Amino acid sequence: MKAFASFLQQHVRSIPHLKPLTASFTSPKRYSTAKMTFETKATIANFHGKLLKLSHNSTSTGTPMNLNLYLPPQSATQKVPVLFYLSGLTCTAENCSEKGFMQRHASIHGIAIVYPDTSPRGANITGEDDSWDFGTGAGFYIDATKEPWSKNYRMESYITSELPQALWAAFPDKLDSERVSIFGHSMGGHGALTLFLKHPGMYKSVSAFAPISNPINCPWGQKAFSGYLGDDKEQWKKHDATELVKGWKGKGFKTLIDVGTADNFYKQGQLLPENFEKAAKEAGAEVEVRYQPEYDHSYYFISTFGEDHVAYHAKFLCK
Amino acid sequence: MKAFASFLQQHVRSIPHLKPLTASFTSPKRYSTAKMTFETKATIANFHGKLLKLSHNSTSTGTPMNLNLYLPPQSATQKVPVLFYLSGLTCTAENCSEKGFMQRHASIHGIAIVYPDTSPRGANITGEDDSWDFGTGAGFYIDATKEPWSKNYRMESYITSELPQALWAAFPDKLDSERVSIFGHSMGGHGALTLFLKHPGMYKSVSAFAPISNPINCPWGQKAFSGYLGDDKEQWKKHDATELVKGWKGKGFKTLIDVGTADNFYKQGQLLPENFEKAAKEAGAEVEVRYQPEYDHSYYFISTFGEDHVAYHAKFLCK
Repeated sequence: MKAFASFLQQHVRSIPHLKPLTASFTSPKRYSTAKMTFETKATIANFHGKLLKLSHNSTSTGTPMNLNLYLPPQSATQKVPVLFYLSGLTCTAENCSEKGFMQRHASIHGIAIVYPDTSPRGANITGEDDSWDFGTGAGFYIDATKEPWSKNYRMESYITSELPQALWAAFPDKLDSERVSIFGHSMGGHGALTLFLKHPGMYKSVSAFAPISNPINCPWGQKAFSGYLGDDKEQWKKHDATELVKGWKGKGFKTLIDVGTADNFYKQGQLLPENFEKAAKEAGAEVEVRYQPEYDHSYYFISTFGEDHVAYHAKFLCK
Repeated sequence: MKAFASFLQQHVRSIPHLKPLTASFTSPKRYSTAKMTFETKATIANFHGKLLKLSHNSTSTGTPMNLNLYLPPQSATQKVPVLFYLSGLTCTAENCSEKGFMQRHASIHGIAIVYPDTSPRGANITGEDDSWDFGTGAGFYIDATKEPWSKNYRMESYITSELPQALWAAFPDKLDSERVSIFGHSMGGHGALTLFLKHPGMYKSVSAFAPISNPINCPWGQKAFSGYLGDDKEQWKKHDATELVKGWKGKGFKTLIDVGTADNFYKQGQLLPENFEKAAKEAGAEVEVRYQPEYDHSYYFISTFGEDHVAYHAKFLCK
């Protein structure tokens, strides 16, 4: 009931004044700058902003990569901060834009959201489509070092460097490259936490839904890290949120994490948020892990608490 | 921008006080009454209420029928009003519960939402799966009178009689059978408008997203009505919202309708909301048809304006 009371309280908060839309916002040609590297496959009106279905050729992965970019109405007349959402195993760039309900909240706060894909697709590596938790749809937001994955499975470089640079170049008057945050779900929660911790200063804030919090100690993580990184477990630790938070060198680390207690993957020990929480608190971090009674691992869970997460990031991005 | 300003204003409205949840709400056994006719396939936490994935054997259709029922948190301790959502062509009971984001708003107002399926499935009628706009997934919320459809394709009886009776019997302490409204999308918008008009007093209010508003004059409606009802066009008129509103005998007819101007089906003349609006206004009705610039026919459109529609129904259901 506390969560529901909090949910209701959000509806009486005040809303900042927003500038009106201009006609230029609605023209796809607006995005066709000289540095444009994206193909716009669709422009869809949603929550008074625009959802762009984009594709580009990635040098990081050596494949075409799809993404969704939500531009809130405020971006018609000013630069807006940017929130990267990293999806979980098996997801594409589409799922959360359809089922996560983030766009509503992004419009209220005036934040753009980037929904990247979860791996290269069509890299033509033997075995890449054999498992739902390794290879296609399961890039784990790391740069693989082991053959044959190391050529294409370079999602850390893609998410932290190539994709944002391409976005800043293509949308210079809409996206504010100085105000960027990151969140994600499950494998994407692992991605958000680890990329934040590995790249101090890159992101203003981080949050996660049901993150894989200690991958070196769970089956999903062990399978992915042995496949992408090889057998040296010291290398694995460089991509494990629980290990990374122990050595965090930035200012006070903060995060918001939601985990459903009816989440089967949580119950199976794939997520291990307690390990992260313990390590983070020992490191002096302000970590709020909210165990949400009865919630599962689905978008029904994500969409329920998305409003809180976007509001959390707005505190860092919109001040 | 007017729509966005209105959207923002909603977030500063006051929220009614709500009673706390009780433990009984969370137990599936709670629903196992003597009159229980539903199998509960899943109970999913969502927006502080419960989404139930239900199935039952329908005598109207002679087939099993799936539905989704969203019970808001308020239903733990009191009867809540009920809003039926009728989906469009090709949809199942699932789509809008995943992509419509009605549950959030239902929790704020304390309204249950019923998401029925759009047709019988597995009736084993030759040709029922040949088209996406006729047969399976395209029941059109009418009782077919023409063989071989007349045995199973009886969605009007199902939606207006069998299903609500079964729900009132199964959830006697949660659902208030005296406060019921209806809305829907496309074919389901046709269903909502026509069932409201054909059954005066059954529903407190009606609204629609991109409804098929004058089916006797559009290809979808003509195909469905000739298939289900035969060639007598006088019979067709009994199931056409534009024809029905001309003869509305109840008190002042009111409705809220949203249509996206970039909706390809609108542009192709499948929806014809202008015909309905003209007929309704000539009949003295208060009809608000909002033409939403740039919006399409998708759940991105529905989810954007769902908040307005649930709030519209709350004015009738929660006073």
